[in-house]
Amino acid sequence: MLQVALDTKDLPTAIGVARQVVDVVDVVEAGTLLIYEEGLSAVRNLRALAPDKIILADTKTADAGADVGAECKEAGADWMTCINAATVPTMKSAQSKIEVQVELYKNWTEELAQEWLDAGIDQVVYHQSRDAKLAGQTWGQKDLDEVKKLISMGFKVSVTGGVKPEVLKLFEGVDVYTFIAGRAIHGAADPHAAAVEFKNEIDRIWG
Amino acid sequence: MLQVALDTKDLPTAIGVARQVVDVVDVVEAGTLLIYEEGLSAVRNLRALAPDKIILADTKTADAGADVGAECKEAGADWMTCINAATVPTMKSAQSKIEVQVELYKNWTEELAQEWLDAGIDQVVYHQSRDAKLAGQTWGQKDLDEVKKLISMGFKVSVTGGVKPEVLKLFEGVDVYTFIAGRAIHGAADPHAAAVEFKNEIDRIWG
Repeated sequence: MLQVALDTKDLPTAIGVARQVVDVVDVVEAGTLLIYEEGLSAVRNLRALAPDKIILADTKTADAGADVGAECKEAGADWMTCINAATVPTMKSAQSKIEVQVELYKNWTEELAQEWLDAGIDQVVYHQSRDAKLAGQTWGQKDLDEVKKLISMGFKVSVTGGVKPEVLKLFEGVDVYTFIAGRAIHGAADPHAAAVEFKNEIDRIWG
Repeated sequence: MLQVALDTKDLPTAIGVARQVVDVVDVVEAGTLLIYEEGLSAVRNLRALAPDKIILADTKTADAGADVGAECKEAGADWMTCINAATVPTMKSAQSKIEVQVELYKNWTEELAQEWLDAGIDQVVYHQSRDAKLAGQTWGQKDLDEVKKLISMGFKVSVTGGVKPEVLKLFEGVDVYTFIAGRAIHGAADPHAAAVEFKNEIDRIWG
């Protein structure tokens, strides 16, 4: 699937992009910064714009899982994110209200990931390692190996961080759940054309 | 210092509590859930209500540190939080815009904490271990030892999680930077009286 990350600073910018790509993408993400700035009304408005798409509230929640999950669900989101530093009870309480994705930032372990699976959470978001990104590298073998390992454990794995259409072929043969593109779509001169380019590449490789 | 955590679900509730305690507390926190729900307008309104107090935006940021830091600062916050799972570059870029506190959830290490200090970040928020809390325990020796260790490393340590007035005496002799009370103040029948009780106990022990 293809997910557009609307990590813009205000709702009009997000809506301006969303209306151009909503017919192409599968998942519409209300980005963390957008939610900080506009609150969950951002989710409510994106739900109104994309009634038939999956809406993700990228809250990166660390605490009060049930409360945040219930609020996100009420606002119209299908999925929300928890940060890997959240405790398993927090994730589990969020999952009791809404489908949870765990975002993999610093200091997670395979052992902990297994605890998430055991708690009924089977979605993770893999970020390209920032060190690699800062060093000007693209997705490397280490990233691919980690993604494959998570998939073999039983996770649906979304990938994000410097995802461009030309990056997708690196994942050929790997059952990635969703590719998440932010700036590559909303920063493009023609967001619709950029989203179509992603979608065509996904169809070519996995179709 | 005493901090009130306004982790309410809407701004009117937060303002209703804040107006009653603003003359007593040192730090007014716009809680994560409140920011999710209302956006940074929550911070703007609390700043307007408490022009002379420290305002904390409890964003628990994991990424895009400079962007979130700049937005929080612009909204009127003095401090913001990063989650311990954020990378050091993310924290550092946030710190370049606003004073950062690192929130200690799951899987942080002393080695990593030293990296935060080396990056110029000297505030952390220590949460009572959730396992202890779920087991019905109050603050234990393990918590005290960790808080003392962080202080000896050079951190200003705020403590949160089940903080009630009767808990404060456990920290006698420990140079805690800020006690953070949420439900114990905003859930009290008389939030003003509850805040005064905290403040009196702080003055009695550390005054």
